[in-house]
Amino acid sequence: MKAIVSVQQVEASAPGLSDNTADLDRLQQALSGTLQDERPLSVPYSCMTTVARGFRDAGFKGYALLNNLEKSRAIVGFSKAKPVVVAAMALDLGTTHLEASLLNLQNGEKIASANLENAQIRFGADILSRIHHATAARRQQKTLAPDFQDVGLDELQATIITCINDLADELAEKAGIPVAEIRALSVSGNTTMAHLFLGVDPFTLCREPYIPLFNRATGIEAGQLNLVISPVAPLFIMPSIGSYFGGDLISGILASGMARSEKTRMLIDVGTNAEVVLGNSEWLIACAGAAGPALEGGVARMGMRAGAGAIEYVAIDPKTFAVEYRTIGDVAPIGLCGSGLIDLVAALYLTQLIDIRGKFRDPAKEKDPERLEFMKKYLQLRNDDFCFVLTATDENDRAEDVVLEQIDLDAMIRSKAAMYAILRTLLNQVGLSFQELEEITVAGAFGRHINPERAITLGMLPDLPLSTYRPIGNSSLQGAELVLLDDEARNECEKIVSSITYLELNVNQEFMIRFSGARFIPHTDPSLFPSVPLFTHSDS
Amino acid sequence: MKAIVSVQQVEASAPGLSDNTADLDRLQQALSGTLQDERPLSVPYSCMTTVARGFRDAGFKGYALLNNLEKSRAIVGFSKAKPVVVAAMALDLGTTHLEASLLNLQNGEKIASANLENAQIRFGADILSRIHHATAARRQQKTLAPDFQDVGLDELQATIITCINDLADELAEKAGIPVAEIRALSVSGNTTMAHLFLGVDPFTLCREPYIPLFNRATGIEAGQLNLVISPVAPLFIMPSIGSYFGGDLISGILASGMARSEKTRMLIDVGTNAEVVLGNSEWLIACAGAAGPALEGGVARMGMRAGAGAIEYVAIDPKTFAVEYRTIGDVAPIGLCGSGLIDLVAALYLTQLIDIRGKFRDPAKEKDPERLEFMKKYLQLRNDDFCFVLTATDENDRAEDVVLEQIDLDAMIRSKAAMYAILRTLLNQVGLSFQELEEITVAGAFGRHINPERAITLGMLPDLPLSTYRPIGNSSLQGAELVLLDDEARNECEKIVSSITYLELNVNQEFMIRFSGARFIPHTDPSLFPSVPLFTHSDS
Repeated sequence: MKAIVSVQQVEASAPGLSDNTADLDRLQQALSGTLQDERPLSVPYSCMTTVARGFRDAGFKGYALLNNLEKSRAIVGFSKAKPVVVAAMALDLGTTHLEASLLNLQNGEKIASANLENAQIRFGADILSRIHHATAARRQQKTLAPDFQDVGLDELQATIITCINDLADELAEKAGIPVAEIRALSVSGNTTMAHLFLGVDPFTLCREPYIPLFNRATGIEAGQLNLVISPVAPLFIMPSIGSYFGGDLISGILASGMARSEKTRMLIDVGTNAEVVLGNSEWLIACAGAAGPALEGGVARMGMRAGAGAIEYVAIDPKTFAVEYRTIGDVAPIGLCGSGLIDLVAALYLTQLIDIRGKFRDPAKEKDPERLEFMKKYLQLRNDDFCFVLTATDENDRAEDVVLEQIDLDAMIRSKAAMYAILRTLLNQVGLSFQELEEITVAGAFGRHINPERAITLGMLPDLPLSTYRPIGNSSLQGAELVLLDDEARNECEKIVSSITYLELNVNQEFMIRFSGARFIPHTDPSLFPSVPLFTHSDS
Repeated sequence: MKAIVSVQQVEASAPGLSDNTADLDRLQQALSGTLQDERPLSVPYSCMTTVARGFRDAGFKGYALLNNLEKSRAIVGFSKAKPVVVAAMALDLGTTHLEASLLNLQNGEKIASANLENAQIRFGADILSRIHHATAARRQQKTLAPDFQDVGLDELQATIITCINDLADELAEKAGIPVAEIRALSVSGNTTMAHLFLGVDPFTLCREPYIPLFNRATGIEAGQLNLVISPVAPLFIMPSIGSYFGGDLISGILASGMARSEKTRMLIDVGTNAEVVLGNSEWLIACAGAAGPALEGGVARMGMRAGAGAIEYVAIDPKTFAVEYRTIGDVAPIGLCGSGLIDLVAALYLTQLIDIRGKFRDPAKEKDPERLEFMKKYLQLRNDDFCFVLTATDENDRAEDVVLEQIDLDAMIRSKAAMYAILRTLLNQVGLSFQELEEITVAGAFGRHINPERAITLGMLPDLPLSTYRPIGNSSLQGAELVLLDDEARNECEKIVSSITYLELNVNQEFMIRFSGARFIPHTDPSLFPSVPLFTHSDS
């Protein structure tokens, strides 16, 4: 286990007329004698003077900071006293949100956390509109000159660098260290974000056949990107596999531990896309599909990201029809995040306000008087369609109520159908059944907030014992943390990249058939979901 | 033989939905398949976009430019058509003068040359005063803080970078290429100049025990130094061995070929110091001493560097006493350069105007009437000392005559004595005699202009057949050219550095004894110089 930057005690003899070895040669020789590592040692240009002066100032003995990342190890600092803290920053570089942590590489402790909205949003909310902005100038000028400078790309890069610098400043302040003493940075993001971060042309990412310019970027120092952390801080950028399979997912696989597991597991990460990986220490197969928007709050009109004011939990008592909900931060509700949406739709199904197709049932055809009363209270007819007014009470401080419309329900059904179809299709590729999985790891905000039981009710996730499901939180950030701390984690990333097979769903016939079959609650084949009650209505 | 930057033809299959390898991965994979070299391939951050776009623009086949310098080879450019010219700049980074050439790495041809005065001169004419300027701020502020920024050092670096950029612009213009298409730079200079070029603290260079901050600086790209050549151009900085043994001399050893020779040779390079190396392919021993100033024109009051108006050749007929001289550029004389000074002093000895101690003889004691007449014409008594007025004729357009004073003669005798003592001491270290040398290579302006016969007359160089002496011109520049063209030359530099033994003369007793013995013309032991006539005078 070797951190990205490590401390090495070293002592050299002092120079004299009979030993006029240059300061940096002296340091390199003394270190080579101490280290059990055959890689050559170098000193990056930008810290030659500070390292040599530090070494001399300390009387030619003390503690060298070593960048262990590259083939040739670099000496990036020297101090007389043993450093108590060697700080390194891990970053989840999300399309909408950045989440960062500061680790002490000396003991692995997390010493600060921070997060921030991705300010690139002002140039476009999603990946496609950002690529559009990045490449606007060259498309207008119709140039393909290799050295053409894209103004929009520069803007996007400068914006994200500013965000990262703000996060670094905040982390350093919380940790009580100068920001220039952050000694390394690991970045885990999707392929487009990695391109925009490096200011590298994303033009071909979103055009068939969807080719990234790079999957790996090595040997970059923070100073080259105008980052405010130590200019010689090494950057570890999580490798990606393709346009739609980014470093954030490699991070997730790493954090989940599935690539070290003998038994087969599944990893589900829902963002704008649902990304799913199946495998073990021998093999990995992955795919991605558009199952996410409704779940991330991107489709439902009242949808929102998990954040303060988002309804994250909803329950309706099937007997009393009492409605209960909880918002993140316990503040007045302003919308529904993914988990709240799943809870609500599952509850609507279990209380029979919607049918197996996910359509609101007509109160006019309801025979149960209590349900009818409930329907009258919560269902409204707007534009010829029913909708469910969740917050038809006075604790709502929005101008509008939090409402679930039929159009939201339809999107939700498509999303859950896509999710289940993705899981089944992937599993079928290797001839396994859900029951053979050791674990289903659920990453991200989705994993943290959803109740797997409710997702099973909807037929979104397979009907397995709840203990099969393990939420792991922000696995993109966790993977970025792991690579800072451990060279074996860094090597595992390369192993993951080389052992993964990618299944393209857009051209997959089986997926389309399974998708159609999954557009009912819980499924057209209810035997797949024995734990879910089945309701049939004469009006369906 | 592999140039520092080479061209490699490569062809890859085009991407498609079934092969969505990233552009740079595709290029790296195709190149790895073609190259017979196990080193990994990388693409420097600053040219990721241009390389990938160039590759794509060329239809995924064409010619890659490879930086072969580092452990990990870098792809630094891509073009559809085979480049006819791959330009690289070699630079002799002298304390007073810069000399540069532009080579076409495709065929080894020199395509342009340029030279320039070192503009750092305005901060100090010599190395010591420049180090003083570089470190003034920190000495005033009495700080040793490792990250203290020396203003003077920054000025000196910015000045030399501007000079180099001017040279690069001139070379590019002469060659008819954009300056950004200069793909590599090799730099050969003394240890202080290398420190100032990189803006690295030279503080300890001139203080006992005279320790450089670095001897080797690797992995630097031109862009890091604000050079106007290609920002990803690799820099090859000639390694040095110590404060007084710089990369320029490693260059000289390389250019002389002595480190590849089975027979033992000697290399003499006279600048501010006389630097002398003895050895063969098995071993090398070197030393430096203050034999130079008089020879480089730094001591004689009329002394000057070899340049327009410098008297580079003097002859006096021993029978007719007719004086002849020639200036560089055939213009009116303004001073004496090293070769003119040697010629003049040798002629004064052979015409018996000076005695074996190098003292002007008193005309009052002269018995030969023709010599007496000559003495009366050319010798003048100034401040109680005789001096020789070389240009006591009307072609002199200086305000003053070009005059050799007794003080100049004394300095000359010290210099020549030091030179001979250095050569003898060095040779004695390995138990060899001058007669066992295959060759004495004489580098630099000194080697180009002096007549070895006259130097032998003075007892400065050993009395060997003239065919033993080989002038090779600017060997510092030649070495810089060789490392651009050939990886074997680059490896030879490391071999030279590791095989050289340095002999410190300042504390050498033998040298001091030999120095005293050599303070006569030609020597206190005339049998060492059988070819030189010996004159004794009753007045000596």
